[in-house]
Amino acid sequence: MELQFLGTSSGTPTRTRNVAGVALRTAGGWVLVDCGEGTQHRILRTPLSPHDLRAIFITHLHGDHCYGLPGLLASAGLLNRTAPLAIVGPAPLERYVRGVMETTALQLPYPVEFIDVAGAAGGLLDAGLLSDLAVDTAALSHRIPSYAYGFTEKTVERRLDAARLAAAGVPRGPLWGVLQAGDDVTLPDGRRVRSADVLQPPRRPRRIVIAGDNDTPGLLADAVRDADVLVHEATYTQAILDKVGPGPQHSSARMVARFAREAAIPNLVLTHFSPRYQDPESVRPGALALADVEAEARAEYAGHLFMARDLARLALDKQGMLSEVPGAGA
Amino acid sequence: MELQFLGTSSGTPTRTRNVAGVALRTAGGWVLVDCGEGTQHRILRTPLSPHDLRAIFITHLHGDHCYGLPGLLASAGLLNRTAPLAIVGPAPLERYVRGVMETTALQLPYPVEFIDVAGAAGGLLDAGLLSDLAVDTAALSHRIPSYAYGFTEKTVERRLDAARLAAAGVPRGPLWGVLQAGDDVTLPDGRRVRSADVLQPPRRPRRIVIAGDNDTPGLLADAVRDADVLVHEATYTQAILDKVGPGPQHSSARMVARFAREAAIPNLVLTHFSPRYQDPESVRPGALALADVEAEARAEYAGHLFMARDLARLALDKQGMLSEVPGAGA
Repeated sequence: MELQFLGTSSGTPTRTRNVAGVALRTAGGWVLVDCGEGTQHRILRTPLSPHDLRAIFITHLHGDHCYGLPGLLASAGLLNRTAPLAIVGPAPLERYVRGVMETTALQLPYPVEFIDVAGAAGGLLDAGLLSDLAVDTAALSHRIPSYAYGFTEKTVERRLDAARLAAAGVPRGPLWGVLQAGDDVTLPDGRRVRSADVLQPPRRPRRIVIAGDNDTPGLLADAVRDADVLVHEATYTQAILDKVGPGPQHSSARMVARFAREAAIPNLVLTHFSPRYQDPESVRPGALALADVEAEARAEYAGHLFMARDLARLALDKQGMLSEVPGAGA
Repeated sequence: MELQFLGTSSGTPTRTRNVAGVALRTAGGWVLVDCGEGTQHRILRTPLSPHDLRAIFITHLHGDHCYGLPGLLASAGLLNRTAPLAIVGPAPLERYVRGVMETTALQLPYPVEFIDVAGAAGGLLDAGLLSDLAVDTAALSHRIPSYAYGFTEKTVERRLDAARLAAAGVPRGPLWGVLQAGDDVTLPDGRRVRSADVLQPPRRPRRIVIAGDNDTPGLLADAVRDADVLVHEATYTQAILDKVGPGPQHSSARMVARFAREAAIPNLVLTHFSPRYQDPESVRPGALALADVEAEARAEYAGHLFMARDLARLALDKQGMLSEVPGAGA
């Protein structure tokens, strides 16, 4: 499983950061969480193709999270996509997209299925939408309805236990493949060997939670219980949040990092940074530095912390270790 | 008057070209013609500010010409713009933008006035919307209603004629300024001198016509009669147009160049190139080169031809000469 960030700024793009969008890649293709304006431009700088995009999940309907949707849908059409596309999000999402399509004469050569996140927490998302990912949702606290999406591997590959195979007297050969695939076999001497008896215990399925805008990280307590990774906004430091006031309903780095520590989340990715924070390469006199946001988070959280950058790729290995793929990044 | 291109690709963005958008800068600020997705990202790489943007003109409502509008409006709001903004375009434009605003909870801290281009050809655009530009429109031929906008200087500065001043016996001094400003004066000896009698003949006001998608350049015959510059799509070469067929209703470079020659337009800017044409720096094996489009145009047109590039700046001087401002470009 791999994350690639397509936008990491909040509200408006900057010269180094686009507005929200993150790709989650698995063996079966990729899904997109949020689609701010310019997401398709970022995709042009990745190995991702609109043909392999299986579903889009919108956390909430603020423009910096969804204004890239019509353009991405249109471009996938111009690329002759024919596979159906599921788009999941809060209720006005379908009305938003259909309204744009109708007023701008946009016709797509592939079917689009809209799924209301409020009614989709359970079976709907699991039922065949994604072959290798189960999706669940959690409601957050923001100025408009906002959600987190949890993505969990549906199946984990199993490994044979060599010692048990030997003890059962299964000869090396095609029967091993049958047993590994989960089927029981009958040996030449007539004995029955059950797959479950010769497989190693399964590893824990990997799980990544990607949250939308939210001023109450604690709402994710249940969602992150078995998560390897939480991706959460940290729009500003606590000092700036105190100055801005609670109106915008965002989280500070401190709030999120403290929650991640208390919830024992092994990997925390912060994103959705206010444009007031400048990247080192473009820092202007008097501007705030993103390093301040990072320092605040590190003071609270001793796990693996990542500050998202546009186009950065973070790979989650089967042991649940998240690490940056070198060489990527805007 | 200066043009700066914010996008020069048709349909989808490429790694070097964004979808449609062009800024027209005058002493009084700037106006935007078309606003494809990512226009605000391009603006970040120019000296243009959303605060000084006086009006937006949409040629037609295909997504590659208008999907950047909601994001630009939102960002201007986050930058605390308060000045009213006029948005001119075909009739579904207001419904498109208001629909997006309503479904995505977008509230703007400045008033937006929508003007239907179909009813705005005459006085509406002239009446104070832009202090120094008169705007007229021409209907084009495309799959949906599409328009060209003509921008003409409203006032041209006048110069005093030194020989006539001497003949009239006007002493050098404050009276010269009064006469240059267009007011008549009375000399100390009681003689009356009329401003019109001592001014040089006015230069022709500069005029730029920017057209939307269009398969019939001849529709612009009236609009370009006194134009210094025509900006027009040349989506492909004639050979590709013949292969694609007339369905998309675009122009070939040959069609536009031939029209510009017959209409004796001194400066022609081609833009809106199909993504199948690659810029030299990114040409892939088997890809078509933009040089083919340029060569086709040059074979028909001997005036000043410009192939638009993203961020390129073209300055139109008072003699009607268009030239590229060095150092700009994506």
